[in-house]
Amino acid sequence: MDQARIERVAEQMKRQGLTQLLVTATASVYYLTGFWVEPHERMLALYLDADGRAVLYGNAIFGLPSTPELPVVTHSDGEDPVAALALAVRPGALGIDKFWYSKFLIALMSHRSDVTPVHGSDPVDLCRKRKDETERAAMRHSSAMNDQVVAAAIAALGEGVRENQLASLVNREFLSRGADCEGTQLVCFGPNGADPHHSGDSTVLKAGDSVIFDIFTPIGRYWCDMTRTVFYRSVSDKQREVYELVRRANEAAEDAIQPGVLLSQLDHIAREIITDGGYGPQFTHRLGHGCGLDCHEPPDVSGVSDTALEPGMIFSIEPGIYLPEEFGVRIEDLVLVTETGCEVLNHYPKDLLIVE
Amino acid sequence: MDQARIERVAEQMKRQGLTQLLVTATASVYYLTGFWVEPHERMLALYLDADGRAVLYGNAIFGLPSTPELPVVTHSDGEDPVAALALAVRPGALGIDKFWYSKFLIALMSHRSDVTPVHGSDPVDLCRKRKDETERAAMRHSSAMNDQVVAAAIAALGEGVRENQLASLVNREFLSRGADCEGTQLVCFGPNGADPHHSGDSTVLKAGDSVIFDIFTPIGRYWCDMTRTVFYRSVSDKQREVYELVRRANEAAEDAIQPGVLLSQLDHIAREIITDGGYGPQFTHRLGHGCGLDCHEPPDVSGVSDTALEPGMIFSIEPGIYLPEEFGVRIEDLVLVTETGCEVLNHYPKDLLIVE
Repeated sequence: MDQARIERVAEQMKRQGLTQLLVTATASVYYLTGFWVEPHERMLALYLDADGRAVLYGNAIFGLPSTPELPVVTHSDGEDPVAALALAVRPGALGIDKFWYSKFLIALMSHRSDVTPVHGSDPVDLCRKRKDETERAAMRHSSAMNDQVVAAAIAALGEGVRENQLASLVNREFLSRGADCEGTQLVCFGPNGADPHHSGDSTVLKAGDSVIFDIFTPIGRYWCDMTRTVFYRSVSDKQREVYELVRRANEAAEDAIQPGVLLSQLDHIAREIITDGGYGPQFTHRLGHGCGLDCHEPPDVSGVSDTALEPGMIFSIEPGIYLPEEFGVRIEDLVLVTETGCEVLNHYPKDLLIVE
Repeated sequence: MDQARIERVAEQMKRQGLTQLLVTATASVYYLTGFWVEPHERMLALYLDADGRAVLYGNAIFGLPSTPELPVVTHSDGEDPVAALALAVRPGALGIDKFWYSKFLIALMSHRSDVTPVHGSDPVDLCRKRKDETERAAMRHSSAMNDQVVAAAIAALGEGVRENQLASLVNREFLSRGADCEGTQLVCFGPNGADPHHSGDSTVLKAGDSVIFDIFTPIGRYWCDMTRTVFYRSVSDKQREVYELVRRANEAAEDAIQPGVLLSQLDHIAREIITDGGYGPQFTHRLGHGCGLDCHEPPDVSGVSDTALEPGMIFSIEPGIYLPEEFGVRIEDLVLVTETGCEVLNHYPKDLLIVE
């Protein structure tokens, strides 16, 4: 139990008029309790009240130890997973973590029609958004490893190589640098890069291809996430034009970061450059996302995100341009908001690179 | 759109008195529409009514094509993801897929207090539970690849090898046999095997270790999932006793499979053997789980599962015994229920194996 964090969450609950809360996301439960549990289809919920009292409910298979500080109430496979919880919650509004499964919420509501579920992720998310010193150090380390891994991946480009071979290499390189697990790495050659979510398949590299590496992994629970786009053997005028536009958008947004600026302004700055260059409709997604214990977490870095930057926030800046059946370009860094500006956590160069 | 499947789902809806349904799980949407979308934090929902009409709601970033047969209604990042859906649903009960995120359900309910969310996964799950011929062929193929991969992993056991090196090797071997992606493979040496969910870390193999390989991956969207436990260099009397007990439990449950038998009976049969052997409390989980487009899907194979076996069901039989700080043993096959018994999809031997 991290009592200081629990108290900060309780403070946020009071500000929002919430007297009780279910924290259910793996990373949020870990943030507050130190227990990392991936419940899959099973039930896990940390019940918090605004006085900072906490009880953890979960399947016995998780093997969580009960302590006076944090009582653990278990159920077994086959038992009603929300029965104990339904006895414990109080009437009225109950904050619900955003990714809790509907099957649990519907079951809880059927037990307790006197309880009103409301959005309840903000109290924890607001705390998690501002990384403390330990977290910043972990994020710097993960991103430093990412710089090394993307260099190894780019060095492996060559005749006959397939996307999924490189994705596999990226995973092995991460693993040898302490990654917690392997994951789906986005490696996209040529036209595949026009799909922002394409992951490595058996496509073979060809001269003239753009190559997008969007690679990410947790190391010591904290994620890195970086994208670099390079060109194999040659670059066309159009590829160069698009690349430079994306690079300028990335750098302009990073240059604008300082406390007080709105996240939406960063999106506007990047989008304006790409729109002025004639590719506005081809920048099909938001500028970025918070990153920490989850790869995607608050804050949202989009045109409708009216949150002001605060020191300690870490998020991605990743403009992209996607031209179906032709190619895509995306350039992404993680950035840490400082008292006076920002620290870019990725250091792999962004100059246009043609790999021979 | 698979019209035959849609009609079977509509039939199930009628039987359950449901007139409208939101199907939101990636695999279920794929099963009905042919679109494979991993929405992550974004919104995806297939609205179905009992007449077989279907409309797909999702974020524009998914790039789903709208057709007369399946209209697609999109929203963009930053827009209210459930606004259009809230206009479309009808008053009364609305079936909700079990893993839909609470944030969407709470938002939808706040728009529409005249709609009552109820558990709504069964109509699709009941259809998905009985695999058709195409699906059976896909599952046989995935499991055949799994047999080959576990053989390669066992062959790689040796001095100084680490769990995560083997997990990485398993992923590469799967990939070279057409796996859709890499995943977290469970490789457990010695005491690590006492945690049923331990995944490969930097633990080094030692003589006398039990070694659990619980390996699984989707190939052509359909999962394999098999566990074998072997011993490195030597086996103690206790390890041998536990191994043979688990093997007998696995085989007795498989021998009992035929249409009409209850899934709970299979759990009881396996559990009785292990309990009679003195290790009942150390068999800490259900006997198995359905497997198909998801690695874990219905049917539940546990002591409280009162569903009767039907031809076409595919699920795992995976008894285990877990002795904290000592070792663990688990043996798992996928089985297909046939008209007269069962077809075991895994063929890697289950005789006790000591690897030199």
